[in-house]
Amino acid sequence: MCHCQGVPSVSQAPIRQNSVRAHNLALVLQTVANSADPISRASVAGATGLTRSTVSALVDDLIAGSLLTEVDPAPRTGAGRPAAGLRPAPDGPAGLGLEINVDYRAACVVDLTGTLRHRLVEAGDQRQAGALSALTRLAALARHRAEADGLTVAGAALAVPGLVAAGGVVRVAPNLGWQDITIGTELDGLPLTVDNEANLAALSELGVGELPPSFIYVSGEVGIGAGIVLDGSLYRGVRGWSGEIGHIPIDASGPLCRCGARGCLEQYAGQEAMLRAAGVTSVAELAGADLTIAGTALGTALSTVVNLLDVDTIVLGGIYAPLVARLRDAIDAEIGRRVLTGSPIRLRAATFGPDAAMRGAAGAVLQGVLNDPAGWLARS
Amino acid sequence: MCHCQGVPSVSQAPIRQNSVRAHNLALVLQTVANSADPISRASVAGATGLTRSTVSALVDDLIAGSLLTEVDPAPRTGAGRPAAGLRPAPDGPAGLGLEINVDYRAACVVDLTGTLRHRLVEAGDQRQAGALSALTRLAALARHRAEADGLTVAGAALAVPGLVAAGGVVRVAPNLGWQDITIGTELDGLPLTVDNEANLAALSELGVGELPPSFIYVSGEVGIGAGIVLDGSLYRGVRGWSGEIGHIPIDASGPLCRCGARGCLEQYAGQEAMLRAAGVTSVAELAGADLTIAGTALGTALSTVVNLLDVDTIVLGGIYAPLVARLRDAIDAEIGRRVLTGSPIRLRAATFGPDAAMRGAAGAVLQGVLNDPAGWLARS
Repeated sequence: MCHCQGVPSVSQAPIRQNSVRAHNLALVLQTVANSADPISRASVAGATGLTRSTVSALVDDLIAGSLLTEVDPAPRTGAGRPAAGLRPAPDGPAGLGLEINVDYRAACVVDLTGTLRHRLVEAGDQRQAGALSALTRLAALARHRAEADGLTVAGAALAVPGLVAAGGVVRVAPNLGWQDITIGTELDGLPLTVDNEANLAALSELGVGELPPSFIYVSGEVGIGAGIVLDGSLYRGVRGWSGEIGHIPIDASGPLCRCGARGCLEQYAGQEAMLRAAGVTSVAELAGADLTIAGTALGTALSTVVNLLDVDTIVLGGIYAPLVARLRDAIDAEIGRRVLTGSPIRLRAATFGPDAAMRGAAGAVLQGVLNDPAGWLARS
Repeated sequence: MCHCQGVPSVSQAPIRQNSVRAHNLALVLQTVANSADPISRASVAGATGLTRSTVSALVDDLIAGSLLTEVDPAPRTGAGRPAAGLRPAPDGPAGLGLEINVDYRAACVVDLTGTLRHRLVEAGDQRQAGALSALTRLAALARHRAEADGLTVAGAALAVPGLVAAGGVVRVAPNLGWQDITIGTELDGLPLTVDNEANLAALSELGVGELPPSFIYVSGEVGIGAGIVLDGSLYRGVRGWSGEIGHIPIDASGPLCRCGARGCLEQYAGQEAMLRAAGVTSVAELAGADLTIAGTALGTALSTVVNLLDVDTIVLGGIYAPLVARLRDAIDAEIGRRVLTGSPIRLRAATFGPDAAMRGAAGAVLQGVLNDPAGWLARS
């Protein structure tokens, strides 16, 4: 049986016979992973259209490969013996999520059930020489702890506040002072991907599954970036450099920005601008400050994003996450004034707060396993 | 044989057996339509992976239904008898493209080969009562001429300068003074779709096939709209209201806009603002005017679009199309200043100039036939 896109969307690519098993393994694994509760083999068959015997053979392989586990059923009051339920294995592959930003580096380990197993954060200026070596040591420590738990780290992903090109090359990360820094595609023998921090943070929300299929994730740090999720997928742009909202012009006669233009969003709602406007020295103190200037600038920029992309949900992450209640009125006022359709916009705080980028990074690794369990089984 | 999306993109939708013929009819028709030259049955088989006998049976049905035609081969110098070539039929279905804008209404007929067969444009203020009735009469005239040619009009699409909701309801078209106007889904017995003019104009470029898969089409009229094409498809947004770039703020202390905000792009680069700044009364006279103010504002707004969506190609349509050479320097200067990556942006004039929206409308009708030839055959 073939599971594929229906007519009239015509693709030129036939499914090769030898990929049918790989395809169906992914279909079964994702069906279990997307189920809120443990799900029986029969239900998987029903949901996928595969026969029960095909499902059972695939499930056996997935259990043997530590991707699925079978759990005892919940007691039922009705007649009949309830079937055992399938769920993702908590002791199989894990994703190693890494982040480097201006004033901290971090690592986390997440297992296939989505549970955070380890979280390591080190504060300090990352613009100094040796920051990448320190991050590598932190990653090794996190991996060591994961392996002590019996987990197998499937790969690593690193979030950086900059524009990333193919081959793990950071084209530019202005606030780190990086230009054309090659991080590469491997970390101590693990496959490594490097990605923009706002993109990975946006992916962390996809894993939670509480948002509509299209939303904008705004990450407030020293710089401001956005992850654009359209129809359930991250929209990366032609070169992977989408979402640079920090330089949306707010006021043509405003303060000079690092980028050379005047009055960019970052000059009103970036971390340094917010601290300066509030007359405080730490992000924690912003919780008691008047944030109208930042909120108004954010509202102006987000109105442009909404007018352009017609999304109705905006997630505020990074330093904005704990400040949503204080920023909301000013943002709403600008959106109400500037968005043509007058439709309400849902504004919410990032689910994982300041951990969003590294959680999204770990999730991206695990998504790779969910997309290609056959590759995982061949490896292990 | 099944032609569908490959692993690892897992879709839950199986292809139904009874849709295989419909799927393959579309595959064959699109393979011929996408070929620059007439293409033999054997080449179609090679390109699709279908057997020659399957292709021949499908081709016979498509010829009988006036969707394909067989043409004599070009003389060849090599050995062997060259095969007859297939191309889309010039005497089968046609698309009826319609447009209503502030100061004109228009209709065109395009056949399946992409040839413009009829073009009717009537100048005049469309904000008056009776504008829609006049458009309906114009549409009937265009259809009558198409039928006199032996064409069968497959459907109609209408381009409007506004936000369109389901059921052919124009939610708001500010420059026409329309609010919640129901145009409906039928025109004299023909299926009718109503869409935003910038969206349809963007589709007209997709049909030409000279652009990369992602680009922004900017339509300059009294208002300014954009059609966003990402990865070969029009991106419509959550409610179909994407691309409203006319209200990107250029200067917070600028002139008051119709929308209630200050300093929107439309106040610098909309048709009325450009005429006022140039001190002229007709669009034709803009060709001799200094357009630095409009170009700079467009460049500022397009920098935001490029920073956000990371596209590298921008098409200027509507009144901008004949003015690209005069606008280019000011646009390029702003993009050079404001786009972080410093990568060059390709800027070009709309292929169909002021006809782009109605050409795209006609093309959308024909794309419907290409996507579902089985539906067309069942109808005729």
